[in-house]
Amino acid sequence: MTFSVAVAGASGYAGGELLRILAGHPELEVRTVTAHQNAGHPLIAHQPHLRSLAHLTLQDTSAETLSGHDVVFLALPHGTSGEIAAQLPADTIVVDCGADHRLEDPADWAAFYGGEHFGAWAYGVPELPIGGSAGGPGKQRDHLVGARRIAAPGCNASAVSLALAPGIQAGLIDDEDIVAVLAVGPSGAGKSLKTMYLASEILGSANPYAVGGTHRHIPEIQQNLRKAGAGSPTVSFTPVLVPMSRGILATSTARVKPGVTAEQVQAAWEDAYAGEPFVHVLPAGVLPRTSDVLGANTVLIGVALDAAAGRVVTVLAIDNLYKGTAGAAIQSVNIALGLDETAGLTVNGVAP
Amino acid sequence: MTFSVAVAGASGYAGGELLRILAGHPELEVRTVTAHQNAGHPLIAHQPHLRSLAHLTLQDTSAETLSGHDVVFLALPHGTSGEIAAQLPADTIVVDCGADHRLEDPADWAAFYGGEHFGAWAYGVPELPIGGSAGGPGKQRDHLVGARRIAAPGCNASAVSLALAPGIQAGLIDDEDIVAVLAVGPSGAGKSLKTMYLASEILGSANPYAVGGTHRHIPEIQQNLRKAGAGSPTVSFTPVLVPMSRGILATSTARVKPGVTAEQVQAAWEDAYAGEPFVHVLPAGVLPRTSDVLGANTVLIGVALDAAAGRVVTVLAIDNLYKGTAGAAIQSVNIALGLDETAGLTVNGVAP
Amino acid sequence: MTFSVAVAGASGYAGGELLRILAGHPELEVRTVTAHQNAGHPLIAHQPHLRSLAHLTLQDTSAETLSGHDVVFLALPHGTSGEIAAQLPADTIVVDCGADHRLEDPADWAAFYGGEHFGAWAYGVPELPIGGSAGGPGKQRDHLVGARRIAAPGCNASAVSLALAPGIQAGLIDDEDIVAVLAVGPSGAGKSLKTMYLASEILGSANPYAVGGTHRHIPEIQQNLRKAGAGSPTVSFTPVLVPMSRGILATSTARVKPGVTAEQVQAAWEDAYAGEPFVHVLPAGVLPRTSDVLGANTVLIGVALDAAAGRVVTVLAIDNLYKGTAGAAIQSVNIALGLDETAGLTVNGVAP
Amino acid sequence: MTFSVAVAGASGYAGGELLRILAGHPELEVRTVTAHQNAGHPLIAHQPHLRSLAHLTLQDTSAETLSGHDVVFLALPHGTSGEIAAQLPADTIVVDCGADHRLEDPADWAAFYGGEHFGAWAYGVPELPIGGSAGGPGKQRDHLVGARRIAAPGCNASAVSLALAPGIQAGLIDDEDIVAVLAVGPSGAGKSLKTMYLASEILGSANPYAVGGTHRHIPEIQQNLRKAGAGSPTVSFTPVLVPMSRGILATSTARVKPGVTAEQVQAAWEDAYAGEPFVHVLPAGVLPRTSDVLGANTVLIGVALDAAAGRVVTVLAIDNLYKGTAGAAIQSVNIALGLDETAGLTVNGVAP
Repeated sequence: MTFSVAVAGASGYAGGELLRILAGHPELEVRTVTAHQNAGHPLIAHQPHLRSLAHLTLQDTSAETLSGHDVVFLALPHGTSGEIAAQLPADTIVVDCGADHRLEDPADWAAFYGGEHFGAWAYGVPELPIGGSAGGPGKQRDHLVGARRIAAPGCNASAVSLALAPGIQAGLIDDEDIVAVLAVGPSGAGKSLKTMYLASEILGSANPYAVGGTHRHIPEIQQNLRKAGAGSPTVSFTPVLVPMSRGILATSTARVKPGVTAEQVQAAWEDAYAGEPFVHVLPAGVLPRTSDVLGANTVLIGVALDAAAGRVVTVLAIDNLYKGTAGAAIQSVNIALGLDETAGLTVNGVAP
Repeated sequence: MTFSVAVAGASGYAGGELLRILAGHPELEVRTVTAHQNAGHPLIAHQPHLRSLAHLTLQDTSAETLSGHDVVFLALPHGTSGEIAAQLPADTIVVDCGADHRLEDPADWAAFYGGEHFGAWAYGVPELPIGGSAGGPGKQRDHLVGARRIAAPGCNASAVSLALAPGIQAGLIDDEDIVAVLAVGPSGAGKSLKTMYLASEILGSANPYAVGGTHRHIPEIQQNLRKAGAGSPTVSFTPVLVPMSRGILATSTARVKPGVTAEQVQAAWEDAYAGEPFVHVLPAGVLPRTSDVLGANTVLIGVALDAAAGRVVTVLAIDNLYKGTAGAAIQSVNIALGLDETAGLTVNGVAP
Repeated sequence: MTFSVAVAGASGYAGGELLRILAGHPELEVRTVTAHQNAGHPLIAHQPHLRSLAHLTLQDTSAETLSGHDVVFLALPHGTSGEIAAQLPADTIVVDCGADHRLEDPADWAAFYGGEHFGAWAYGVPELPIGGSAGGPGKQRDHLVGARRIAAPGCNASAVSLALAPGIQAGLIDDEDIVAVLAVGPSGAGKSLKTMYLASEILGSANPYAVGGTHRHIPEIQQNLRKAGAGSPTVSFTPVLVPMSRGILATSTARVKPGVTAEQVQAAWEDAYAGEPFVHVLPAGVLPRTSDVLGANTVLIGVALDAAAGRVVTVLAIDNLYKGTAGAAIQSVNIALGLDETAGLTVNGVAP
Repeated sequence: MTFSVAVAGASGYAGGELLRILAGHPELEVRTVTAHQNAGHPLIAHQPHLRSLAHLTLQDTSAETLSGHDVVFLALPHGTSGEIAAQLPADTIVVDCGADHRLEDPADWAAFYGGEHFGAWAYGVPELPIGGSAGGPGKQRDHLVGARRIAAPGCNASAVSLALAPGIQAGLIDDEDIVAVLAVGPSGAGKSLKTMYLASEILGSANPYAVGGTHRHIPEIQQNLRKAGAGSPTVSFTPVLVPMSRGILATSTARVKPGVTAEQVQAAWEDAYAGEPFVHVLPAGVLPRTSDVLGANTVLIGVALDAAAGRVVTVLAIDNLYKGTAGAAIQSVNIALGLDETAGLTVNGVAP
């Protein structure tokens, strides 16, 4: 069976990655692509790498052009998807790749984004444990089954949450005093025309931004970790732009509880993701690189106990555009529609 | 007055940077260059960027070829400089750019390096505070005045130590539970022929290594912080190779003591480096980039208080080859010889 | 129906790309992977991006381990595949991804490679025109149908040949005085441990090599162009390593015959590749980028007539590892086996 | 003696490089910096790498702010410097780093730029031979002595002209049918906010532009080569953006005259630049890399005779911002003022 798909924001990077994956999906078929500013242009003029979709023309982004499809992906700037989404039929699967439907707490929304709070949808990181050590076992996947409204995750939030949730859930680490530093590629910023994203500014340099507790993915991480069993987690979060177009290498650390051994740590992380098709905990001593997961829906996690420092150190590699955004969205739709969760998604990275 | 200089290990990256700076130094003159494996070759064959030194020929590295100079820089692999240094005259200034003379505690040496422990020399980060909050004020500079044996610092150790020493000294942060994550360029590894350093492995990827408390710069950081006033500091340290040839962007965080304000933090960091020609604390809200200090002896530090996370977050940019190694060495020699500390050293980065 | 496949040289870059594509091929199944130096290791230790092949173990490269498969891909250093190939059964499809079976003329082989000449096999660039303006129409594809011995092309040779063959065949350009300059990524050199391929040498720099008529792909280009109708083509060929892991951007120019118009040029190039699934001539004024074809079997060609300079200028983008090597090999096997020529091959690049 | 300097366009890349070099110049002192859009900002806000100039504030760009200095550098967009320059005193040295005063022929200006033609000034590539094989010997340097109006060169034009002028002058190569392909970094485009210059578009990709005879540096090359002795040179010119912030690697080729030997070629190129402090012809078989000249006023040229192709192939490395623009401008001012031509300019590149 084939489901009809529309992608809004199709001339951007997230939209392009959605289309690239969808072009190879056996059961989802792209019928409509929209882009506010570039309506009327051939898609290929803005996404010259998408040869198999050269027949598509960009339309205006509106409830009208997006209606009549089984699935609508919104790859729009924060603050604009909420309004469009409200006009789409209730039985259409709508996936918001922006931030508008990620945060449950209006106070978080007000503090980090501002403007109208649209409320939270089913969260598109199926593998994240929920329930915590005390609660019943479960994963975010449970909420995605049959969902008609899905919030794709923030790429950085997804990385840090997946990295530390196992330790939270197993009760091996403190939820206070988490520290995460991420090396990230600039594609996460989209085609935003700012001097800081010019090639001459990024090439040969490592450039931090949003330092000191201001990054918008912080409340999303906290929300995810609370669902995994944390109380009131604190997260020091620092992103650093580095000269690679895509990829996130997240180093996330937390204080280990007294007496916990390296073996317990390794086992807890492996258990948390046992059987998952896309999230893998590497053997002790093996570390992931972003090139290993470039162009793939794969998450690789290395974990180590630094006994001297009293911390569990996790290193996680993810492609911000694929598993961090577009792949997570499509994986979630696969679940919502009852398809094979892995349909159309690759696990093999493009390397070197 | 002109002092005669020899550089051992002149065909490597650290040696090349020493020579590049020395070529513009008004009072130090390179007379001898040595390289074990490439003896007999013209220097320019291995350092084609050093046009002004095209007349030099590489000689064998030995006590004989290195003797008879006022200053000898040893840019040799760890474990080899100790032996050579022991054969050089006591009144020659010898700078070890390797690790052999950095660590005071034989136990640290045994745990992280192994082999013969040669003891510690005057430490080549002049700006580092010593004495701590309780002790008298001072800086590592004090030990460099008139020194004849100098240990150039580990580039990563220098970065993290400079980033956090002000908070330690001022008593604003805990010395327990420091977390540092560094984005680093591959030139720090020298011309080592390993697959992990091939361009195809580094380009487009972020690659962690030495995760979980194993990196050799950890005891050096701890030693530096103890001198700044720390008790028994713990440091979770994670380096990540990113695709830029040089540069370190160090994100170093520590728990802030109760009641400390952002203003106090900013003031303490500014005070620590007030008047320093090479280390600058940026205004609140301004962040450094490695391109700002590429090819310069400058260290730029941004500092923020993340009250929600309970941590001071520092972001520090340094050129690993210049201020991280060769510039620190030459700055230290300037001090030892009683020259202007800034002689031959630039503060302006090469950007973009 | 499923065909059994073995890949020799599976721990290298070309071998890795073969495996990555084969992992998604509907009718070819990898059963055996070999690597001389790393026999006994799990494949994933050397190709950590190939998650779906994590169950495979590297074996020794020998006629014995490679026998018993329907298809054998040899991704071995030049000079070693000839010997192995000679020991494999005649009805096995053997694809040599090295140079040993590309050149027909023993004099070419002697001049550019040396050692035993193994003779030429069916050439794995199906889209290349043969016959020329005088001869009957045809393409290299014709020789691949039913072939049991296939020579995958040199990636640079493939690029320049595809760029200029249309003009040769249509009689619009001179075959004398062709000039080609290529910006190439270092992955084409494999995992060779030479200083020139270290990340520190490649990052931030453009580095020429094999200048002045010495590159081994020159006779292969000449052979291809002769088959397209050239007499005794001369090719000035200069490759320049640039800091991207994969990709070739080939600028290939030739003198235009008197009176030829831009419209004739555009039409001739479009006609040459009309209906080809993987080779596309872009509309006049549109230029290809290597990121458009990264990770794809697509070749994009832009062509322009520079009337003032009297030259046709072609700019061609290709992924050296995919369409330049592994994709060409698999496409050729698809043809040889009578499968859909596009089976298992993607046309969409991974961008940004 | 100290000369007073103003730099207009000080917040851009060319302006930044002028300032970086001037900051170390023994006889030129920057007193005024201007920038149209950013007037009132501290310079350091836009050029955070220029620590030694942190005391300067950007002023408005006007004849008023620029007057009263010995030397004025205009690093302004094409078409704007002509108007400003006309208002400055005749005895002020004015250096136009834009294109407005490079082309002598109004027809060239009309064809490639358009708008008002301001006429040509003394051309800032001192080493370029003039007079040709028939005329008397000389160099562009002759026109710079005592000059009060100087046109800094186009960086690409400078590269190709320096590469081929020796062969033209010596009568060893044809001036017809020159072909040049350049790998260039994006900093040459300045801080222009266009999608094509975003890091995500440049990283990991090689991107051609201005293909087929449209690039504005073509008439400048032709003008330079005519002065070196060419008749009506034709130049096929193709620039390719590659992922390095600065640098040009120009491969420039021309047909060799019959009977010319490799030794004659090598000798002619060496002779042309014998004694030049900044332009060096490498020994036969040695090739330049852009990293060798990054941050330096050095030009490195490798030259080879490809007898089979009938072409001389030159490979030239230059830093587009340094010797390609700002260094050339300052070198020219040194000459105009009668200072040591090398004052304030380095010959050593920053590598790796």
